[in-house]
Amino acid sequence: MELKETQIRTEHIFKGKLLDVWRDVVSISSGRETTREYIKHPGAVAIIPILPGGKILLIRQFRYALGEVEIEIPAGKIDPGESLEKTVIRELEEETGYRAGKITQIGEIHPCIGYSNERIWLYLAEELKRTSQNTDHDEMIELFPCEIKTCLDLIQQGEIKDVKAIIGLLWTEKILSGEWSVSPHE
Amino acid sequence: MELKETQIRTEHIFKGKLLDVWRDVVSISSGRETTREYIKHPGAVAIIPILPGGKILLIRQFRYALGEVEIEIPAGKIDPGESLEKTVIRELEEETGYRAGKITQIGEIHPCIGYSNERIWLYLAEELKRTSQNTDHDEMIELFPCEIKTCLDLIQQGEIKDVKAIIGLLWTEKILSGEWSVSPHE
Repeated sequence: MELKETQIRTEHIFKGKLLDVWRDVVSISSGRETTREYIKHPGAVAIIPILPGGKILLIRQFRYALGEVEIEIPAGKIDPGESLEKTVIRELEEETGYRAGKITQIGEIHPCIGYSNERIWLYLAEELKRTSQNTDHDEMIELFPCEIKTCLDLIQQGEIKDVKAIIGLLWTEKILSGEWSVSPHE
Repeated sequence: MELKETQIRTEHIFKGKLLDVWRDVVSISSGRETTREYIKHPGAVAIIPILPGGKILLIRQFRYALGEVEIEIPAGKIDPGESLEKTVIRELEEETGYRAGKITQIGEIHPCIGYSNERIWLYLAEELKRTSQNTDHDEMIELFPCEIKTCLDLIQQGEIKDVKAIIGLLWTEKILSGEWSVSPHE
């Protein structure tokens, strides 16, 4: 079966401060045409920060679309022309006030394949040194350090629902236990 | 620190076949105002189907926004007025041609907290019986059954990037190994 779909035409629907919305007409392998609506996203990084002593530095943040406070890991969009590594160092420091001496990419995830091209690269951050938090003017972030075992309990109990946090923490547990190695993902 | 944000006014930007885009002005706890752009989504289910014999029934599907074939688990949006359980049974049968005799909710995840209110409820599906696949006219889906151990290898190697598949499979591994119990999530 041929799964690929091919663009016939594309239409720019909306460009906001955050959202960039498109609608394309595409041909699918059966020969039919259909439309695909989606968000163009610059890509992002998400960071599992391991504090001296071993706790994981989670954060808590109100998420307006969902109307609730989420337990998350630090994350942020890639600025134009910025490398993944620079984004990791910058976002971690802005959101938590810690600067990482060592970062390691562990994987790439796609949060929203039905309607967004967003890709998130996951990084471990270690050798953390306190500097100062410097969030965007409309970001309110609370630090929430937790032992990895507690993080896993929070996932199982349904207290952590954010996908990048769940995957980052489950992946980190496998690395810390030696079950998975940190292999280069390019 | 007060994290909550309060709506001041709301504006409907776009309603497509799939996307429902809104922009609100909100007040944040510092007293400032800012805007929040987001997608309203009806919610969805994602299903980890365990075949007789123990393989997990993954699927492969071209995802236009990303321009690539993704390895996923069956999933779909909740129809208006439809229960989660009915959505699970319906989507699993439509996408894979299997009817489940037993389904169990294991968790709730939020894939896209920065710009969507989408919630996905994860279900195990067991006691599967072959009926017939009946996808939507614009869905092309290939079945891809895998041993759970192979699923985990595919995650670690970066072959599975879809967040609902990664979380569903890591969670299922913990249940099958006895490390996590299936507790009721309401």
